[in-house]
Amino acid sequence: MSEPLSDTALDQLFRTARSYNGYLDKPVSADQLRAIWDLVKFGPTSANVLPSRIVWCVSDAAKARLAACASDANKPKIESAPVTAIIAMDLEFPDHLPTLFPHVDARPWFADETVRQTTAMRNSSLQGGYFILAARALGLDTGPMSGFDNAAVDAAFFADTPRVKSNFISTLGYGDPATIFGRLPRPDFDLFNTIA
Amino acid sequence: MSEPLSDTALDQLFRTARSYNGYLDKPVSADQLRAIWDLVKFGPTSANVLPSRIVWCVSDAAKARLAACASDANKPKIESAPVTAIIAMDLEFPDHLPTLFPHVDARPWFADETVRQTTAMRNSSLQGGYFILAARALGLDTGPMSGFDNAAVDAAFFADTPRVKSNFISTLGYGDPATIFGRLPRPDFDLFNTIA
Repeated sequence: MSEPLSDTALDQLFRTARSYNGYLDKPVSADQLRAIWDLVKFGPTSANVLPSRIVWCVSDAAKARLAACASDANKPKIESAPVTAIIAMDLEFPDHLPTLFPHVDARPWFADETVRQTTAMRNSSLQGGYFILAARALGLDTGPMSGFDNAAVDAAFFADTPRVKSNFISTLGYGDPATIFGRLPRPDFDLFNTIA
Repeated sequence: MSEPLSDTALDQLFRTARSYNGYLDKPVSADQLRAIWDLVKFGPTSANVLPSRIVWCVSDAAKARLAACASDANKPKIESAPVTAIIAMDLEFPDHLPTLFPHVDARPWFADETVRQTTAMRNSSLQGGYFILAARALGLDTGPMSGFDNAAVDAAFFADTPRVKSNFISTLGYGDPATIFGRLPRPDFDLFNTIA
């Protein structure tokens, strides 16, 4: 049985953490990207399907290619961040189940295409949540975004693997406090929760 | 700028955390449910849409009603857990945007029904990831599940609010280590990640 984490940790993960529009001039190493994955991978997914596929854009060329698919407001955020990650999903994730879920052949559970799409979307988004919190747990900041053309990103990055589709994207780095606005409102428990 | 959390905290959140099939006989209070929400609510969502609606089933009656909609393997987990939460989503989330995103009228961004559904699914799943990690951060354990009939849950819990649809469910409590199996495999970085 675990104790609650310290207030400092809860602040860093949730309460004072923010989404950043710009970052300090401080690099993020490949080892740090691997360290994020080495936390994200432990987050639960349905039957361990782990559908997320992540492209970590670190080169100027990759960031420019991604920025070309994004809204005007998001282009400069993508190009100036140390890293921008594409959180994508593999719609044919069941191919990996013999390795990821070895005790029984779980592939028939996902034979239906709609089930596969829903499962990929739900679980790659869950993993997106793990990604954001893993980055924060490691002292980094993120700037998740949906303001881009998914089909254009898929054409630019996944033309050779059409089974992989973009879900959302996120900048990553050491956030520059000068680039955030005031916190948007957060509702109390009673507005969106019910105890039954 | 933040430092990485301690190894103990990273273990509790990700590396040694597990999904539980059963729980210790130790209650979870309504204050603890509120404390989870008071972390989850700070997790980022697209334009602060916060589409998750959570029904926390704590009464035997509510858990039985939910278990009736679940797979045979999941029924006893739901009925015996201190709490089983329904992570649902409000497809008409834009109605709250004048409060949640007050600076500009963001409702037109979500006028298209497909965009609304995709946004609700992506962001309520993200919030599901925050829920799992917030519970762990507070010393609790979860058992997320998709093995249930979404339409049946919607009929049983959201008949009066058809704009709300179930996404996934999760047991919650202090996990009993006797109820878990060996950890399923987790792939190394290179299988599912690319640096571009």
